[in-house]
Amino acid sequence: MIAIGIDIGGTSIKGAAVTSEGKVLKVFSMPVTKGEDGVTTIKKLANLTKEYIAKEHLENDIVGIGLGIPGTIDSPSGVVTYSNNLRWDFIPVVKLFNDVLPYPVRITNDANAATLGEAKFGAGKEYQNCIMITLGTGVGSGVIIEGKLYEGNEGKGSELGHTVIKMGGRRCTCGRKGCFEAYASATALIKDTKRAMSKHKDSLMHKFAQEEGRVGGRVAFAAAQAGDKYAQEVVNNYIKYLGEGLLNICNTFRPEVIVLSGGIANQGEKLIKPLEEYLEANNYGYPRTPKVKIINAKLGYDSGKIGAAALFF
Amino acid sequence: MIAIGIDIGGTSIKGAAVTSEGKVLKVFSMPVTKGEDGVTTIKKLANLTKEYIAKEHLENDIVGIGLGIPGTIDSPSGVVTYSNNLRWDFIPVVKLFNDVLPYPVRITNDANAATLGEAKFGAGKEYQNCIMITLGTGVGSGVIIEGKLYEGNEGKGSELGHTVIKMGGRRCTCGRKGCFEAYASATALIKDTKRAMSKHKDSLMHKFAQEEGRVGGRVAFAAAQAGDKYAQEVVNNYIKYLGEGLLNICNTFRPEVIVLSGGIANQGEKLIKPLEEYLEANNYGYPRTPKVKIINAKLGYDSGKIGAAALFF
Repeated sequence: MIAIGIDIGGTSIKGAAVTSEGKVLKVFSMPVTKGEDGVTTIKKLANLTKEYIAKEHLENDIVGIGLGIPGTIDSPSGVVTYSNNLRWDFIPVVKLFNDVLPYPVRITNDANAATLGEAKFGAGKEYQNCIMITLGTGVGSGVIIEGKLYEGNEGKGSELGHTVIKMGGRRCTCGRKGCFEAYASATALIKDTKRAMSKHKDSLMHKFAQEEGRVGGRVAFAAAQAGDKYAQEVVNNYIKYLGEGLLNICNTFRPEVIVLSGGIANQGEKLIKPLEEYLEANNYGYPRTPKVKIINAKLGYDSGKIGAAALFF
Repeated sequence: MIAIGIDIGGTSIKGAAVTSEGKVLKVFSMPVTKGEDGVTTIKKLANLTKEYIAKEHLENDIVGIGLGIPGTIDSPSGVVTYSNNLRWDFIPVVKLFNDVLPYPVRITNDANAATLGEAKFGAGKEYQNCIMITLGTGVGSGVIIEGKLYEGNEGKGSELGHTVIKMGGRRCTCGRKGCFEAYASATALIKDTKRAMSKHKDSLMHKFAQEEGRVGGRVAFAAAQAGDKYAQEVVNNYIKYLGEGLLNICNTFRPEVIVLSGGIANQGEKLIKPLEEYLEANNYGYPRTPKVKIINAKLGYDSGKIGAAALFF
């Protein structure tokens, strides 16, 4: 069985035929043209997909086409309600695709697609209940319950990055104050790093930032590793923020596993070990309540395409 | 179809045969003896249930026996892992029942049972995804996803009262600081009311407390209604705390509906109207994201028995 999985990003769109074993076949791609309206982009994408299917002689093998799209998606209706990144407003993606291609088409949020990919074929494949948290520009999330993606009413559920962990705290892009995202995203970590750097001119963070050519999410971790106490403070606070958000997820879902993805997750054990210690020390009802494993995502950038295709598996 | 539904409380246990239409037949009950160990209590209860079934001539009609029990419950194993209220520690309820009665026995947390009752036969019966929040001594919760109770790993999920809304805030009974429960339970409202009363000797709250013979959850609402500004401040803060916790639930699950139960929920429109206004003003992505309805529970004390029986419907 083969489905097409398409991952729409802020600057480029990538798609591929994906087998029901999660294997990615030949990839196709197109850029996202800034300022282009969504209808035009989707029409181009549908035509490109049609060409790809013809060129790869897949006409009779395709069971459907799945798309992961950033923004709020009304998956039952097949409409992108709104995408802040793409500036899309009520784009009827499924209808537009079906004007060009006769296959079933399903859409979901990009974080949901990536989660489904990891849950079915990556880090989460041995678990029935798993949550994926993506630590990037924001804090993305996807929820798998009994092996199925949980999307909520009109596909608008599982915005775990926009749950408040500190009422009245930092202003979030969503309008509320104190969201998990405003403390645990890479953006938040970088802001905290910069704040500490401007306060401590003698910190090793300056050296690592210079080596990297910018202040990225890695700087505080690298400097802390090298023994810098100011960087250690930044990292400790970040672990605490992330830990509190993950504890909330544990107490809400008590999943078997939380999968971390995104740039910050690349810190691996430097992140996961202190995080697991924090979770264990604060786990609700522990030891009578099972621990929640924290593991790294495995599929990298493929998770979105694989998960979008997996909407049909 | 008939199942026995049993609701174990802190001071008494009530059970009844319940039809698959949610109708409660004759009720039986026994007191909870303080200090008695769990094994003894469950043995007594199983024998009482056996007598009840014989007396009501239900031997051939019963499809199973369900119990809702306060505490952390390992429902797949049929064991009460720990109940703080009852001082029970690893009580194998299902096994103990089956020593006396030959029917299938299932157990769940009391909040889960009440939620299932409301979801199947009460306020939530028209909805597939619904969350119930009980505002009592603590903040209890139950989660219904696609018509089914969501229990999490080892039945330890959906402790929404123990998600932090204010990091570093009020100490919660669970050990963390800033839990939803520490701000939105009846206990928290009463503490806030008492604090305001001791600060404002001229507040109408004193009059209402005297009339009621105690400072209960109603006092601030009644005094606010009568125009007392200090009481209004207590109520406004309570709405804000409760609102933030409910917004987190909306962004996590985007259910169709949140059902409120417990003493405070009896405030009805005085609570629900300002709460809905708060949710609408702060709803993620609204108006592109559907509103979540807030409604009152309908079944009162029967919800626990009905829901426990509904574990078999």
